[in-house]
Amino acid sequence: MTIPAALDALETFLGQRLSRSKSDLALHARSETHFPEMPPDAVAYPESTEEVSRIMKLCAEHGCPVIAWGVGTSLEGHTAAVEGGICLDMSRMNRVLEIQAADMDVRVQPGVTREALNEELRATGLFFPIDPGANATLGGMAATRASGTTAVRYGTMRDNILGLEVVLADGRVIRTGTRARKSSAGYDLTALFIGSEGTLGIITEITLRLHGQPEAISAGVCAFESFQGAVEAVIETIQMGLPMARIEFLDEASAIAVNDYAGMVFPEKPHLLFELHGSPESVAEDAARFGEIVTDHGGSGFEWSDRAEDRKALWAMRHNAFYAIKALRPGALTLVTDICVPISRLAQAVEETREDILASGLPGPILGHVGDGNFHAALLIDPANPSEMETAKALSHRMVERSLALGGTATGEHGVGLGKRAYMASEHGDGWEVMGQLKNALDPAGILNPGKLVP
Amino acid sequence: MTIPAALDALETFLGQRLSRSKSDLALHARSETHFPEMPPDAVAYPESTEEVSRIMKLCAEHGCPVIAWGVGTSLEGHTAAVEGGICLDMSRMNRVLEIQAADMDVRVQPGVTREALNEELRATGLFFPIDPGANATLGGMAATRASGTTAVRYGTMRDNILGLEVVLADGRVIRTGTRARKSSAGYDLTALFIGSEGTLGIITEITLRLHGQPEAISAGVCAFESFQGAVEAVIETIQMGLPMARIEFLDEASAIAVNDYAGMVFPEKPHLLFELHGSPESVAEDAARFGEIVTDHGGSGFEWSDRAEDRKALWAMRHNAFYAIKALRPGALTLVTDICVPISRLAQAVEETREDILASGLPGPILGHVGDGNFHAALLIDPANPSEMETAKALSHRMVERSLALGGTATGEHGVGLGKRAYMASEHGDGWEVMGQLKNALDPAGILNPGKLVP
Repeated sequence: MTIPAALDALETFLGQRLSRSKSDLALHARSETHFPEMPPDAVAYPESTEEVSRIMKLCAEHGCPVIAWGVGTSLEGHTAAVEGGICLDMSRMNRVLEIQAADMDVRVQPGVTREALNEELRATGLFFPIDPGANATLGGMAATRASGTTAVRYGTMRDNILGLEVVLADGRVIRTGTRARKSSAGYDLTALFIGSEGTLGIITEITLRLHGQPEAISAGVCAFESFQGAVEAVIETIQMGLPMARIEFLDEASAIAVNDYAGMVFPEKPHLLFELHGSPESVAEDAARFGEIVTDHGGSGFEWSDRAEDRKALWAMRHNAFYAIKALRPGALTLVTDICVPISRLAQAVEETREDILASGLPGPILGHVGDGNFHAALLIDPANPSEMETAKALSHRMVERSLALGGTATGEHGVGLGKRAYMASEHGDGWEVMGQLKNALDPAGILNPGKLVP
Repeated sequence: MTIPAALDALETFLGQRLSRSKSDLALHARSETHFPEMPPDAVAYPESTEEVSRIMKLCAEHGCPVIAWGVGTSLEGHTAAVEGGICLDMSRMNRVLEIQAADMDVRVQPGVTREALNEELRATGLFFPIDPGANATLGGMAATRASGTTAVRYGTMRDNILGLEVVLADGRVIRTGTRARKSSAGYDLTALFIGSEGTLGIITEITLRLHGQPEAISAGVCAFESFQGAVEAVIETIQMGLPMARIEFLDEASAIAVNDYAGMVFPEKPHLLFELHGSPESVAEDAARFGEIVTDHGGSGFEWSDRAEDRKALWAMRHNAFYAIKALRPGALTLVTDICVPISRLAQAVEETREDILASGLPGPILGHVGDGNFHAALLIDPANPSEMETAKALSHRMVERSLALGGTATGEHGVGLGKRAYMASEHGDGWEVMGQLKNALDPAGILNPGKLVP
């Protein structure tokens, strides 16, 4: 019952596809998190569900922790090997298995990235909308219940997964869901595994809902005199039911960052970035209504574009905002935190967070998927100054407390991992104990991503 | 550890709100199912979450089964007291607790019916869209993951519940979810309880998403020469992404039934009934596109109406179709079964089902929410002739096998209860065992709705 014995058995089974090389361990210790690196003892590269099942059985036999791995874009320390064990790198399970265009669904392996999938779908007239910014794997996105810029229109991973294949802690393989659009056939196991962060099973296949590529897309940007104006424009837009496909907030610090990094020429003001999908008529109609709301709230420099290259540049800039913000303070560590509140509380949540960050003296741009009530602060920390990390953690802590007090959640889309585990008891009360009971029922030995999410 | 001891303890606690009257027991033995009546030993009428919690503790102490009850519209025997115990009638917990118009959500007690809720919402400009036909309670709808005519546009109960309050088997009270639109804070307990049919906990509060009342609504009906034409029109409509709010199929037998029952004058042909929601412009645009599809597939007598009273009559007729069909054969027992397949398989599933029913000689109109791939057969059985019940069960059995073979589910929206439990192993494989493990983790003594859903 030791990790070394498990590694020997795994090596016999996988040969060179069990790696203990220092560079591999270091690579799989890294992600986008601010937590210290905690490397696994080995990295396994399975190529099939059967292999994952066999690996789980061997690890169960020897009590060896197993941590699933996509491409390492996690922000909350989900992949840290806090008790050692193996990292299960799913990158070789990266095939798009079956596109069913008529039913608008697709079956993929977990190592497929969202961009690779959309590349493959291009000729079908369909697309997969969920877009967390990073080119994450679909397995990772499922495991963290990812969302991002388009959730305001298309929902999160929860809303776009029809079914899963999962390898359980004991090596059993189950399939959840069907290809039917809805079902009332028992417990929603699909939803249970989505967002379970590798603590209940290893996702080895995903059936995703697809959407028709919109006939017309129009994207735009505008600046506001005050962040309150921008946030209030968002609230009114959502309350009026305008079907925005994206509606993103950048504060002035974020605008400065992307100007420097991506050669944009935004005024140094808060901005909204937005996109509409639909028929040419509906997009034009919605754009006109949105324009009125923006003007009412002091928005200016309102610009729309129907050209694909303009849109591409706009969203590439948004997706690189994280790196642009990092570049504001070269060499800095970044603590990116994420809360989500009811839309009516968004202005208050942003305002209080902003004042708190300003008072701290740390650079900390705010940006986010405000159509969902979701926003991030990216706090830039001098690694040589431990007090800055303490300040950043205290700011993040107060953000979460603020969110919970306003009826929101400790994490809108980044997940729990190590970073938000301390808040699970206050967010869920006895519900967190229930999560522990479920975990214990499916993984009594606690070998699946130990130290994360559950009590 | 006996039911009588539990009843004594409950009577001390609840006084007259624990009823053992014959009429009450008989009333709570009945639902819309074809299963024989299995009355509880008593009916409890709690008035608060605290009372439900205390009841659960007493029942846990004495090992007494507890079966939650809404208004008895279940079709699959969910509320049958197969092991006796108490029926927990939630009708006194029927308050709309808090409407948050700005966030488009509402907190309700489980005994509120969907019609009562929409009545209460009328002046707010918001509405709750899920419409299973019957005026069910929202607690019952949550517990069975109900859907109905509008799921094609608004999703099912799964998509419209933000959070729950649940009393567990041991009396603990938990709250799942928050009022934020999305969250990645741990296991999706909300989704776990939705559709759990009272086997994991008692739902005592529900936070629902609301939607803006559409600016424009247009509804209509048209007849087709063949059922294939009708079904193919639906498939094309869905594949083109037209945002139908409702798209319902009635076969010719159903058309005859509603003519007789509701004084309609439909041609004796297959029909589609449909509705669009949106702005006046988008509704007009979508109606025109849908009209072209219908014409291409041999639809005729195409009629739209924007008048509220016409729509009301149309959907009242649809909602009464179950009773209209029952009236085709006075005194008959009805076995209503429900499957859901991927949309590309809908024509095949309907055609094979139709032929099978015709060959059996039983009256069995087909109708359903075909935009989701979901349809029902209502089999009319002479109670004096046991062989007809056998025939009906065999037809229902083959429908389910057909659905599973086509990548569908054993039940699209009616749930598992007693009626579909035999298919859970073939639909879910080892996943059904996993459901049993989860049940066992949360209700080890098996007092919550025993004999249903899980192994």
